[in-house]
Amino acid sequence: MRNSSEYIKSLRDGRSIYYRGTKVDDVTTHPILSVPISHAKSFFDFREDKELRKFLTFNDSKLGEISGFYKIPKNSDDLWYRSRLIQETTRLSSGLFNIIQAIGTDALYALMIVTKKLNDQKFYSNVIKYYEYLATKDLAVATAQTDVKGDRQKRPSEQSDPDLYVRVVDVRDDGIVVRGAKVHTTQSIASNEIIFLPYRAMIEGDKDHAIAFAIPSNTKGLKMIVRPMIEIEGLPSKEDAPLASKHAEAETMTILDDVFVPWERVFMFKDWKYAGELANLFALFHRFTAISYRTVEADLYLGAAKLSARYNNIESAPHVKDEIIDSIMYREIMYMAARISALEPNIDSNSGIAVPNSLYTNIGKLYSNAYFPEILKDVIDIAGGIVSTLPSTADINNPQEKVYIEKYLRGNPQFTGEERFKLLRFVRELVGGPFAGYMLGWMIHAEGSVAASKIAMLREYNFDRAEDLVSKIADVRKK
Amino acid sequence: MRNSSEYIKSLRDGRSIYYRGTKVDDVTTHPILSVPISHAKSFFDFREDKELRKFLTFNDSKLGEISGFYKIPKNSDDLWYRSRLIQETTRLSSGLFNIIQAIGTDALYALMIVTKKLNDQKFYSNVIKYYEYLATKDLAVATAQTDVKGDRQKRPSEQSDPDLYVRVVDVRDDGIVVRGAKVHTTQSIASNEIIFLPYRAMIEGDKDHAIAFAIPSNTKGLKMIVRPMIEIEGLPSKEDAPLASKHAEAETMTILDDVFVPWERVFMFKDWKYAGELANLFALFHRFTAISYRTVEADLYLGAAKLSARYNNIESAPHVKDEIIDSIMYREIMYMAARISALEPNIDSNSGIAVPNSLYTNIGKLYSNAYFPEILKDVIDIAGGIVSTLPSTADINNPQEKVYIEKYLRGNPQFTGEERFKLLRFVRELVGGPFAGYMLGWMIHAEGSVAASKIAMLREYNFDRAEDLVSKIADVRKK
Amino acid sequence: MRNSSEYIKSLRDGRSIYYRGTKVDDVTTHPILSVPISHAKSFFDFREDKELRKFLTFNDSKLGEISGFYKIPKNSDDLWYRSRLIQETTRLSSGLFNIIQAIGTDALYALMIVTKKLNDQKFYSNVIKYYEYLATKDLAVATAQTDVKGDRQKRPSEQSDPDLYVRVVDVRDDGIVVRGAKVHTTQSIASNEIIFLPYRAMIEGDKDHAIAFAIPSNTKGLKMIVRPMIEIEGLPSKEDAPLASKHAEAETMTILDDVFVPWERVFMFKDWKYAGELANLFALFHRFTAISYRTVEADLYLGAAKLSARYNNIESAPHVKDEIIDSIMYREIMYMAARISALEPNIDSNSGIAVPNSLYTNIGKLYSNAYFPEILKDVIDIAGGIVSTLPSTADINNPQEKVYIEKYLRGNPQFTGEERFKLLRFVRELVGGPFAGYMLGWMIHAEGSVAASKIAMLREYNFDRAEDLVSKIADVRKK
Amino acid sequence: MRNSSEYIKSLRDGRSIYYRGTKVDDVTTHPILSVPISHAKSFFDFREDKELRKFLTFNDSKLGEISGFYKIPKNSDDLWYRSRLIQETTRLSSGLFNIIQAIGTDALYALMIVTKKLNDQKFYSNVIKYYEYLATKDLAVATAQTDVKGDRQKRPSEQSDPDLYVRVVDVRDDGIVVRGAKVHTTQSIASNEIIFLPYRAMIEGDKDHAIAFAIPSNTKGLKMIVRPMIEIEGLPSKEDAPLASKHAEAETMTILDDVFVPWERVFMFKDWKYAGELANLFALFHRFTAISYRTVEADLYLGAAKLSARYNNIESAPHVKDEIIDSIMYREIMYMAARISALEPNIDSNSGIAVPNSLYTNIGKLYSNAYFPEILKDVIDIAGGIVSTLPSTADINNPQEKVYIEKYLRGNPQFTGEERFKLLRFVRELVGGPFAGYMLGWMIHAEGSVAASKIAMLREYNFDRAEDLVSKIADVRKK
Repeated sequence: MRNSSEYIKSLRDGRSIYYRGTKVDDVTTHPILSVPISHAKSFFDFREDKELRKFLTFNDSKLGEISGFYKIPKNSDDLWYRSRLIQETTRLSSGLFNIIQAIGTDALYALMIVTKKLNDQKFYSNVIKYYEYLATKDLAVATAQTDVKGDRQKRPSEQSDPDLYVRVVDVRDDGIVVRGAKVHTTQSIASNEIIFLPYRAMIEGDKDHAIAFAIPSNTKGLKMIVRPMIEIEGLPSKEDAPLASKHAEAETMTILDDVFVPWERVFMFKDWKYAGELANLFALFHRFTAISYRTVEADLYLGAAKLSARYNNIESAPHVKDEIIDSIMYREIMYMAARISALEPNIDSNSGIAVPNSLYTNIGKLYSNAYFPEILKDVIDIAGGIVSTLPSTADINNPQEKVYIEKYLRGNPQFTGEERFKLLRFVRELVGGPFAGYMLGWMIHAEGSVAASKIAMLREYNFDRAEDLVSKIADVRKK
Repeated sequence: MRNSSEYIKSLRDGRSIYYRGTKVDDVTTHPILSVPISHAKSFFDFREDKELRKFLTFNDSKLGEISGFYKIPKNSDDLWYRSRLIQETTRLSSGLFNIIQAIGTDALYALMIVTKKLNDQKFYSNVIKYYEYLATKDLAVATAQTDVKGDRQKRPSEQSDPDLYVRVVDVRDDGIVVRGAKVHTTQSIASNEIIFLPYRAMIEGDKDHAIAFAIPSNTKGLKMIVRPMIEIEGLPSKEDAPLASKHAEAETMTILDDVFVPWERVFMFKDWKYAGELANLFALFHRFTAISYRTVEADLYLGAAKLSARYNNIESAPHVKDEIIDSIMYREIMYMAARISALEPNIDSNSGIAVPNSLYTNIGKLYSNAYFPEILKDVIDIAGGIVSTLPSTADINNPQEKVYIEKYLRGNPQFTGEERFKLLRFVRELVGGPFAGYMLGWMIHAEGSVAASKIAMLREYNFDRAEDLVSKIADVRKK
Repeated sequence: MRNSSEYIKSLRDGRSIYYRGTKVDDVTTHPILSVPISHAKSFFDFREDKELRKFLTFNDSKLGEISGFYKIPKNSDDLWYRSRLIQETTRLSSGLFNIIQAIGTDALYALMIVTKKLNDQKFYSNVIKYYEYLATKDLAVATAQTDVKGDRQKRPSEQSDPDLYVRVVDVRDDGIVVRGAKVHTTQSIASNEIIFLPYRAMIEGDKDHAIAFAIPSNTKGLKMIVRPMIEIEGLPSKEDAPLASKHAEAETMTILDDVFVPWERVFMFKDWKYAGELANLFALFHRFTAISYRTVEADLYLGAAKLSARYNNIESAPHVKDEIIDSIMYREIMYMAARISALEPNIDSNSGIAVPNSLYTNIGKLYSNAYFPEILKDVIDIAGGIVSTLPSTADINNPQEKVYIEKYLRGNPQFTGEERFKLLRFVRELVGGPFAGYMLGWMIHAEGSVAASKIAMLREYNFDRAEDLVSKIADVRKK
Repeated sequence: MRNSSEYIKSLRDGRSIYYRGTKVDDVTTHPILSVPISHAKSFFDFREDKELRKFLTFNDSKLGEISGFYKIPKNSDDLWYRSRLIQETTRLSSGLFNIIQAIGTDALYALMIVTKKLNDQKFYSNVIKYYEYLATKDLAVATAQTDVKGDRQKRPSEQSDPDLYVRVVDVRDDGIVVRGAKVHTTQSIASNEIIFLPYRAMIEGDKDHAIAFAIPSNTKGLKMIVRPMIEIEGLPSKEDAPLASKHAEAETMTILDDVFVPWERVFMFKDWKYAGELANLFALFHRFTAISYRTVEADLYLGAAKLSARYNNIESAPHVKDEIIDSIMYREIMYMAARISALEPNIDSNSGIAVPNSLYTNIGKLYSNAYFPEILKDVIDIAGGIVSTLPSTADINNPQEKVYIEKYLRGNPQFTGEERFKLLRFVRELVGGPFAGYMLGWMIHAEGSVAASKIAMLREYNFDRAEDLVSKIADVRKK
């Protein structure tokens, strides 16, 4: 088990990162990128608290004390523990998901299940060894799945440029050489390792793209271009971004410029028949992670709505009540979905791993994606137009302006004007500033869109129960 | 434990029932009302199957073998068993709720909890004795809660006519005399006993209305006016109503024309402070019942949507898929709510009774009420305009017409025209006929409206978690 | 110009109609079918009022005084007059559309435009002569467009049974012989003539199906099977169906059993290239008709919502206000769409006919179809569960029950219990009885589904304006 | 008629502006605030084009050539001209509303109508003279209406601090002294004059707050604190904000620190009975303005959705089509509302001024506010998660990164990777950056919230038509 200093030190390894057109020497001290690093670091700090450590870690009979994220889920309790781990680390991170050991283990458990089915058990063995390496070293792991995809109407092998899906370009005795790029790789800059997974189901012609593997984050040829972190930079001052100035996650375009991967880190190799299953299983574990952290993230909006209503003294207004109800529904339907997904898992018979219930996970995810804009709207409607027109912290710090701002921003008399300014400042960050724009994209796309959840639901739903009932009453055949 | 013949016999007791302006002599043989009776009777028939009997009944250490509905819920498992009982009896009744021992026990458990808190434990003792009487006699019990309410802006005691809420008009040594009327009393005509509960919270001035009691269904002065059962009568023939011609529930306006209630059947007497709690607790138990039976009822619409799509050969049409997804969401969000409500109950410390989780029950109920019209729309959109314009069974029975109907109603070639006619005939019943109109009202109002669920949610939601998170980040006070 | 007696007399012509399995001798005296006939008859009665006659009729320079429906629209004013005609005849018919000269002229104007483009102007000439015949004789005309369609994934010529789309089976010197069946033919039983139009776009292989023609309603081989009119029969008594017992429209499955059509009544003959345009143009005219009558029909729901709120004394409840707003939006967006569709028509340069604006007509129609179930829900939510459980008229007519019903159904004290019963009785018809089920199907499918409006919108929308703006700002190419 | 240089010069007048804590010397050269100034300036530049000048200006018989915004609307055509003026200046400003003569005239026309009704016609005369002054000088005018409001449950006179609504603090022979603050004052920094209007209806006790007046923007004691313009500053570079780096509008908290107003600029003085009417009339004119500019602004989202779909090559995906339909509905319902509001105005009989139809204006506005978040969602869903994770312009400008970005961001092969980057860069600004957050607040609150439109609709709707229809059919009284 590492402490946070060891973690920070591990990131100074020559990794190749670009931010806003400039190569980054040390990501841990970079004025902006140090924020997502510090966010990841906090994950290791939480364990300093003894009580929390009991909850956050776990004694494995073979590996000793390891992070709870590395506890392989075997039953409902394990899955619910995993969900609560995600919920609690999110809450401790001010409501922002702390992905750093979550997504990697989502990938690992999917890999364990799928590689167990392959004829060549070498890959399963590779996964297990890699898992033990990660768990005992307490590593931070990113997962890169989304290819850049080029023409969305074409398969990987049909693209004009075959590199538009990551692929094998050379096979050597000691390993393979891979090329391509992934997007949306969250916290790759804060990771020690990155796992690469196929994005979609494949046909035989796509087999060069049917690969899964892992590499250290400082591997030669691996280049990461970080998105501009507007939620940190986009508000006038640190004080105007009380959340994002402390907690944020960076995504990268993650480029594999002919990167060598040794065989022991290859987990799938041209097994095109299993690419889709691996992609889907990872997506399922990751969506279960999603509805877990989003349950807590939703508290940001629910709390903002409720406190804004109180500070405006409109808690009893009927439309405010309706909007609060929306926010409760939003949070709690995700909670229910996470809870039931853990309670009614599918146990993979080969590996013994408990897989979150696909139906309920996707229901929670679909609701989560579809209704998020409505939740933003509710908070804005309650907080008022002032979320767009609030002065900046620099204004309230100027005594000539402060007198007016404090006097005139007073709402509910039980709070001062300055208090209301401070609340609204955060609400602006949440719903009216660059964080809002960033989160909209995140909540609608991260871990899969509404369309992706629908496809999963239709693929797996058991219609027999309903069809039997109706065909019996109508006295007709089902098929 | 009774068999269904004993049950039927028990209803021939001189009860006072009116249907379409006429006094009903024997409800069990009435051409229309025999349908809801037969529906209730089937509840007793299910036990003839040995396997089912194991599931449907239960051995109480004191009372012996009793119906599972009379199993007092003490924990999550008991509540989930109760939910499954409701689900399965609904499924066995062709997707139509079979209320006959459900609503009475909803009332009993609420009464046990509330009367346990009263100073005078006589009332609790009355409830327990009544419970044992019902359980050992295996009785069918209706519950009448909704007063006619008069002017909705006025409290019971403010009404121009005090009888607009049921009230005590005389107190005698041996009991009380009550007057008033309740509406929407489901299956009162099929019950052996009727429990009367207060509808709402009261103030001291309303105390004459703060009463709860039970009476046999043939009590002198008790009169029941049954709604016209259009879902049975409103389609051209029995065959055109494959569901409602076999399964239906009757509601009555239930009139108390100065009815005498002996003290041992009085459960609340002018204890106005507890009227609201009793009303709400019953509503909560009953909404838990609601989301349980509606989970199965939803299969009617989901199955109708899916089979209609198949018979029209449009299963792969994008808008059809979206509508199927809607129907899945509808069913499964109710299921999740029922499951979690059982999993996370509130255990009443006085009585030891497990109360379904109010938040999740109301979330499920709110979703259920709010989205039902959308579900109807989805089925209609998929099935086609033919649900409004389909010929009748008499037409297909006329050989001169049959040849055309069979030829021209053919859709997906894997089914005959006659099969498609039969499916559409049932879909018309479900979404295009009087049953649809009746169900719209039912699904929007039964067990409480959307507004009622919202009130319950806001009353009980714990906002601290969300407010703490936000106030900490914004660095402001909550209150 | 005919009077209503002449109209009624004209229907006694030996037409072949089936209702509930029985051949109908005289549709004008049939106990049930006389209702849709009487509804159509009222259309002719409105003109007895002098003021109304001025509005409802029009002096054509060539044809003399003719019905306003036969006024060929040449500009915005004509289209808006046509919309108002439809609105007013709907209002005069208690809010129920009176289709009898509307749909026929929808078809005629579409036929005029399309036949004008054909090489062989004989067909245009046939249309014009037919138009003059209809206008001067003041005839009632139905239009049959929707084929039975068989397998929805197959074109007309690909069906296992070619008759599943109406087609030519013989070509003779004096005319053609046609076979097939149409569904949803509204008021065919009340019409003097029926126009048949193609349902969809065709390819060359489908050309036998690319036909349009008209026949008298008593033509040999034409058979009509009427849907069961549950909205009339399905409520206990006439008094329980205050609307449908007076105004209703009948739909038929309309069978062409090798029917002969003389050449002068053939309007399109195997001109497969124009089948789609004709189908779409008729649909457009007819959807303009739809949003016109639905504007008034919406008043039924808006009025029911508002009066129910008043009778329950809940007009000031916040959720009631929101629901009233929904109903206003519903009515007025349709109104706006109709108004703008007339204001911004496309003038067909060949024929000079003003075509309602396709975009706005389809917007109005899409909104109308998509939100109708919500409107039903609103009325039900306001009126209360009593719309499902109200006693029948026979009950209030029985003095023993009347005393209770009048006493206990009193709501807002400014109305008597009997008045509230009467209002609720109609609201039950509207939203809780067979009429509601029938209307759901109608509102979701008649004149085309939501999907049909979407297809039309995407086919015709001019995206240039929006794409130009964005491509200019982003400095990129559109194509 | 001024040219843009004269306009710019007019703003260098010593006005008191704060931006991010610092007093601004010259707003026209300020690095950030020069953007909203330049945006306003473009309004004057449009007239350099001769054809546009014909459209944008107008020859008044008394005042000569004046801006079209100063054309007092007397009929439908004038109102529709006004709407088109707003639409076209918005389109010419890259889809961003150019408020600079719109909101001032919204206020003027409301003032003309209301002051015409006052006993003392001096105020009307003041308004007219002020109007002529503005029109002939071609001035830019802001309007400040929204008070800071303090405790929302209290009237102006009930606030703990009476200054929380602007009020008269001194009455002198030559004028009055006013104190208080307004928020959300759009483009006050770019205006020559500011009109102050009451925010709400008042009672007699509030009369010190029932005032309307105008002052030059450089008046002593007037102080403006500009919101941080995150949509300009919040993206990494000008190129990353292609819209906001050129077009933006600034809002201020606008403080009246005991400002003197001469009597000739006072338009309402303690006429509390008319405060509400003035507030509502201005809101109505301004909402008509809103649905006019929003019609064009909606093209930004519609164009972004359609082009993103094309660049991703997913135009034919069903969910994309549905989202495009949403965007069309959004634009065109606003368009219809604007068109009908002009077509069916209320002509004020006193002043002869044409007032946009309140019902249709509010319907358009309600739809506009309520559905905007959905429109954002649609664009994001189509464009993809890349709107959150796109690299910055600096990255593509670095040749080491450019090669990867161009290679891997290629989508639809008919566009280059660089083109797709440029399109997505703008889409990120629109839906994923600080502009998105700002616009959410704007679209939900500017010109009044959904709740405000609902109140207006219920206040003015004529329910008679609907109630008459229903009460006649049900045969009951309306009242």
